[in-house]
Order: sequence, then C-alpha cells, then structure tokens
Amino acid sequence: MKILITAGPTREYLDDVRFLSNASSGRMGYSIAQAAIDAGHEVVLVSGPVALPVPAGCELVSVEGTRDMYDACLARFAECDGVIASAAVCDYGPRERTSGKRVKTGLPITIELVEMPDIIAELGRQKGQRWSVGFALEAQDPHRRAVEKLHKKNCDAIVLNRTTAIGANDNSIELIDSTDTTVAKWTGSKIDIAHRLIAWIVGTLAD
Amino acid sequence: MKILITAGPTREYLDDVRFLSNASSGRMGYSIAQAAIDAGHEVVLVSGPVALPVPAGCELVSVEGTRDMYDACLARFAECDGVIASAAVCDYGPRERTSGKRVKTGLPITIELVEMPDIIAELGRQKGQRWSVGFALEAQDPHRRAVEKLHKKNCDAIVLNRTTAIGANDNSIELIDSTDTTVAKWTGSKIDIAHRLIAWIVGTLAD
Repeated sequence: MKILITAGPTREYLDDVRFLSNASSGRMGYSIAQAAIDAGHEVVLVSGPVALPVPAGCELVSVEGTRDMYDACLARFAECDGVIASAAVCDYGPRERTSGKRVKTGLPITIELVEMPDIIAELGRQKGQRWSVGFALEAQDPHRRAVEKLHKKNCDAIVLNRTTAIGANDNSIELIDSTDTTVAKWTGSKIDIAHRLIAWIVGTLAD
Repeated sequence: MKILITAGPTREYLDDVRFLSNASSGRMGYSIAQAAIDAGHEVVLVSGPVALPVPAGCELVSVEGTRDMYDACLARFAECDGVIASAAVCDYGPRERTSGKRVKTGLPITIELVEMPDIIAELGRQKGQRWSVGFALEAQDPHRRAVEKLHKKNCDAIVLNRTTAIGANDNSIELIDSTDTTVAKWTGSKIDIAHRLIAWIVGTLAD
C-alpha cells in the first residue's frame, strides 16, 4: 500500500524573518513513516521544517508554508491509498506578508490572521474509496472536539493527543473511529504508538 | 576571559500552541561559543530552542521566551567580561497569551504585538568596563541601520548579516566598530567566521 503522511509544523510569515508556527518536532509523523516502511508500505512524507533524519526508503517532499503543504498533498494523494495527517499545520496565518524585515517603530503593531486552507478536510472531500486518518490536538473539551473534527473532515479515524505531546519523545493518545468509538488508548514512545497505529489501519481501514 | 553568548531564536506565544518566532538555527551563536572555548575562554551560552549539540565545556542556560533570555542574561552578565549577542530575539510578541489553544472561529483574528525587552540595549547600559558585541539583521539600508543600532545599544562593535544567513551553514558578514569603521568583511562557514570574530575581540576589545 502507498501512504501519504504529513509531518512537522508549517510556518506562516509576517515578513521575511518573522513567522507564526508551533513547536512540533515532526517526531510523531516521522515515526509513523518509519513504522509504515517497517511494515512494507510505500510512503510519501510531506514534511514541514524539522531537524530529523528522513526514514530510509520514504519519499520526502519538503515544504514550509501551509499552502505549500496543501498543494503537495493534493498533488500526491491520487497515487496513494490513504493519508495520515499528523502535521501540526498553522490554521491561521497573517493576511499579508511584508517583504524585507518590518522595522521597529516603538509602537504596538496590529496584525490580522486569517484561516489557512484545511488540508485534511480537502483530502476528505476528494478521497472516494481511499481512507484518511486525522490528528486532533485540543486543550478544551478534547474528546468532543476530536469527534466533531473527525466528521467535519470526513476522516475514518482520528488520533487525539494533548498539547503536552508537542516536541516530546513520548505521547499518550486516544484513537477514535468513525462510529465515535474509542478503539484504543495508547501511551508510550512515539515509534511504539506509530507501529500500533499502522497495524490498526492495515487491519481495519485498508482491508 | 569569561564570555556571555546568546544564540538561537526566542518564541513568543499567542496561546499554549501557537507562537511567533524566526528560523534561526542557533548555528552562528553555537559556532562562536565553540570558537571561544577553542581559544581558551569560559562561555555562558544563553540559548533559545535549537536542535544543536552543546559545545563541550560551555555552560548552557536554556530559555524559550525573550523575557526569559533577558532575565538569564542580566543574571549572568556581572560575572562575565563581555557579551556577544547573536540570538535572533523576537523583538515583537503578542500583548496577551491565551491559555489553552484558541479555537477556530471561521473569522479573521486580530492580534496586537508589542515590543519585547531589548536585551543588548540593557546590557549596554549596564556594562561599565565590559565590552558588548551586537548582531544586526537588516533587509533595508542595512549598513546605516547597523551603525544606528551599534550606538543606540552602546555596543563596541556590531556584526551585520543578511536575512539569507538565517538557518544557513555559511554566512557573509560585515564587522563595524564604534568609530563606524567597517573593520572586516568575512564570508565563509559560520565556524570560520566565529574564530575570526573571537580573535578580533581578543585583540581589540579585550586587551
């Protein structure tokens, strides 16, 4: 099987120097890519800027901004059997990017942030017979929000993790399927969780 | 001699997930720390989040936000003979940090950014007999702005580099002293430039 995997953060620039982002290390997505390769699958890994070695045998597509990641995913999804969207995409970015570096004025600056294109929602719309697994990172009322996201984005399953997962080696996740059932709760290293997730997808979504 | 060195980016959070930052890898500052140690000096390295090994023999103070870096520098400057401020500090940050993760509303968000404390300016005010070397990264009218910054922040010298230096292995810099004279232009690897900079400081500022 061929799997599209997104990983890492994206960056949304205010000017040529300053950007909005998050502390995603890419470790969860790269672990999933490794686990998929270990299980004999092909992987297209669309990754934001991270400081991780690329798992041997996967095809890397490096991107920086959310729109780049959106374009890369839409271009590559057709050839894949499913997608695991673990990237910590910027859902907001500055309406405008100033060229050069904004000069300090001594005064406050107001910037307007607009919503970025929703990658997993668009893949969900286009997927047909393919499967899609999303990730949710929610601070308030996490389970309910994850279930909402699962349906809104037409996912077959969603992995709910907590804000403490960002940049960490370990993770503690809840896997929810499209019947809103919590089918697993796993705690452990990201690579261990990645192997379990791939095994579950192969056994449940991809048969 | 004991040298305070700042390195890496800082992060200014909008909420518990999203932050403003820049693509600084920390490589210039870590190279300077390595060069200082190679030349037999003691180093206190105050570093934002980077993915680099800490040079053996230097004392690392890890920070994340600009205010943390400011506090750490002010606490450690008294015991040092000088400071090299190569960190790519966020000069603006959100006025408020929302706890948790802001929920998407479908509408644009307006955020107000305010100026962060100016670390090298404050060290310049307090330095007495100590020396201070700043860094400037300017897109428009870089030489003039670097000279302005040199005086405004009471530096003994300033290293002017370009936006293309961010995250790169190589650099191309101009070193300007307090008489507004360009005393050197160096192009090469960051570690090579770091060795030259330390040699210049030892020969010129620290005698």
